[in-house]
Amino acid sequence: MSISFDSGFAAGGALPERTLDPARLYDALVLGAGPAGISAAIYLVRKGLTTGVIGSVLGGQVAWTSDIENYLGYRLVDGAALVERFREQVAEFAPDLGLGLEAAGVERLGDRFTVRAAAAAYAARTLVVATGKRSRMLGVPGEERLLGRGVAYCAICDAPLYRGKTVAVVGGGNSGLEAAIDLAKLCPRVHLFQDLGRLTGDDVFVRRVRAAPQVEIHLGARVEEIVGEEHVRAVRARPAAGGDAFEVPVGGVFVEIGMVPNSELLRGLAPLNARGEVEVDCACRTAVPGLFAAGDVTSVPYKQIVVAAGEGAKAALSAHDYLLHLEPARG
Amino acid sequence: MSISFDSGFAAGGALPERTLDPARLYDALVLGAGPAGISAAIYLVRKGLTTGVIGSVLGGQVAWTSDIENYLGYRLVDGAALVERFREQVAEFAPDLGLGLEAAGVERLGDRFTVRAAAAAYAARTLVVATGKRSRMLGVPGEERLLGRGVAYCAICDAPLYRGKTVAVVGGGNSGLEAAIDLAKLCPRVHLFQDLGRLTGDDVFVRRVRAAPQVEIHLGARVEEIVGEEHVRAVRARPAAGGDAFEVPVGGVFVEIGMVPNSELLRGLAPLNARGEVEVDCACRTAVPGLFAAGDVTSVPYKQIVVAAGEGAKAALSAHDYLLHLEPARG
Repeated sequence: MSISFDSGFAAGGALPERTLDPARLYDALVLGAGPAGISAAIYLVRKGLTTGVIGSVLGGQVAWTSDIENYLGYRLVDGAALVERFREQVAEFAPDLGLGLEAAGVERLGDRFTVRAAAAAYAARTLVVATGKRSRMLGVPGEERLLGRGVAYCAICDAPLYRGKTVAVVGGGNSGLEAAIDLAKLCPRVHLFQDLGRLTGDDVFVRRVRAAPQVEIHLGARVEEIVGEEHVRAVRARPAAGGDAFEVPVGGVFVEIGMVPNSELLRGLAPLNARGEVEVDCACRTAVPGLFAAGDVTSVPYKQIVVAAGEGAKAALSAHDYLLHLEPARG
Repeated sequence: MSISFDSGFAAGGALPERTLDPARLYDALVLGAGPAGISAAIYLVRKGLTTGVIGSVLGGQVAWTSDIENYLGYRLVDGAALVERFREQVAEFAPDLGLGLEAAGVERLGDRFTVRAAAAAYAARTLVVATGKRSRMLGVPGEERLLGRGVAYCAICDAPLYRGKTVAVVGGGNSGLEAAIDLAKLCPRVHLFQDLGRLTGDDVFVRRVRAAPQVEIHLGARVEEIVGEEHVRAVRARPAAGGDAFEVPVGGVFVEIGMVPNSELLRGLAPLNARGEVEVDCACRTAVPGLFAAGDVTSVPYKQIVVAAGEGAKAALSAHDYLLHLEPARG
């Protein structure tokens, strides 16, 4: 076995986009096209490795993020603009792209991984799993039934649909506070429910929320039902300290209580921690040879774009090291 | 003790630059103003922490890097331009800046750190050490004596001084290859010395070096002396496999054999690994409470700008967690 060099990389010019090839044995397949996956793909291609990317949406969660001011190198950029930069960079390095695809299964046989996606299977000598995380559900009556009929998980995506309405946000961490700030620009009244006795997000967001007259903060209030028949019409909550439940009439509920890792694919293949995150070391290696992971899906704390970008680079360089080690005679 | 909030952060406008204050007890002091340090400072200020930065040069090694094509979010950017973006972002968040300073000593007394720099001392409740690394010396006769008189360590900085001359590059890893590529644009002849039997840098660089007719590659050749009286006039090398030494006449020597971590400050305070790097976990915590480290100075592998940026963010968030934990009643 040797590392192949027909990676599509050529100095000084973008190549046409190439699609994923089921007949090819890739040096590396990247699962996920968010910042961790894209950063990994850039590093893999630059190392001369044949690289494929399988991911539903280029940019991942960044695509539906509004203002970003903590990504080093950009004083202020909105998510869509940053994704445009990712797209240019991907075009330059031209890994084989399988966008719009989601991996449905991963198998390891000998020193080869097989990833099933849609009707095809793709093979690779290493995997970089960068599948990110998704919104956590509240798990209360009415939530699933009214999904898309007043229940939403992404204020940045769906806020405009609720212009002029009274809405609720569930969650007092950064996601909840950012949602409340965004919604306060469009909605006359925003009820923010937090089951703890304090808001837990960044001070800058806490101050902005407290300064917004449209936002009413319900501390120590646990949402126990989302009420409505055809569409959400109220949130039912109860003081966490005990006492009577109360209903607040709203036209929409944004559930912003954090995220769960998209690690189901690896269950039984690689160790996950108690939160379901893929366990990695500081070089993004999992316990499985040839299997690397980066970004929000991993046990590395702090789910941030710049952290994911750095972790993706590390995972790629670790995958490269692993392949070199298999083939020490490489000249 | 409580976390202070007068951090100089204000939404929606840059503040005037503020200088480091010896009379202040900072929530966090960042040592180093490269990508790890700057990213840390941005995150610390956004968390509402009083933050100071002590560093010789804003941007650190990025300032003398030429084309960067693997920093996620920039298809191609030169180091100076990226540092300009860092500068804008620092101005926006306005930590107290001590640029042009180098920390000369660090002490820990109780739960407070003191950093000596120039004639002053600065105090903080947490430290983020992001002091990076510096060029490794070859350690052969002539090197120190001819430093600045033909011996150089930064092709990107000093290449223009050698225009039209025959030069040597010592080192066949990425730094050496990049130096040879840069120098080949200016110099009629570039002798590349590599003590190993193969070039170890990225394929893309190996190919470019091999394609440059100006570059003569001496594999398996160990440089054992830099020869010259007032100025470098030759490199003396010997086959690593044994045999007679040989001299190659050159007007300059670029030593590009890697870097050593700037961790001397922490010797005796925090555990370092065999390479002298500060040992950190995946959240950038050292073994010392309140002491965090990020970027090239740490045990985290892969010295890359995007990795440093991500690690800086993690170190800052870990420092914030640490301070919160000291003060659980923070509301």
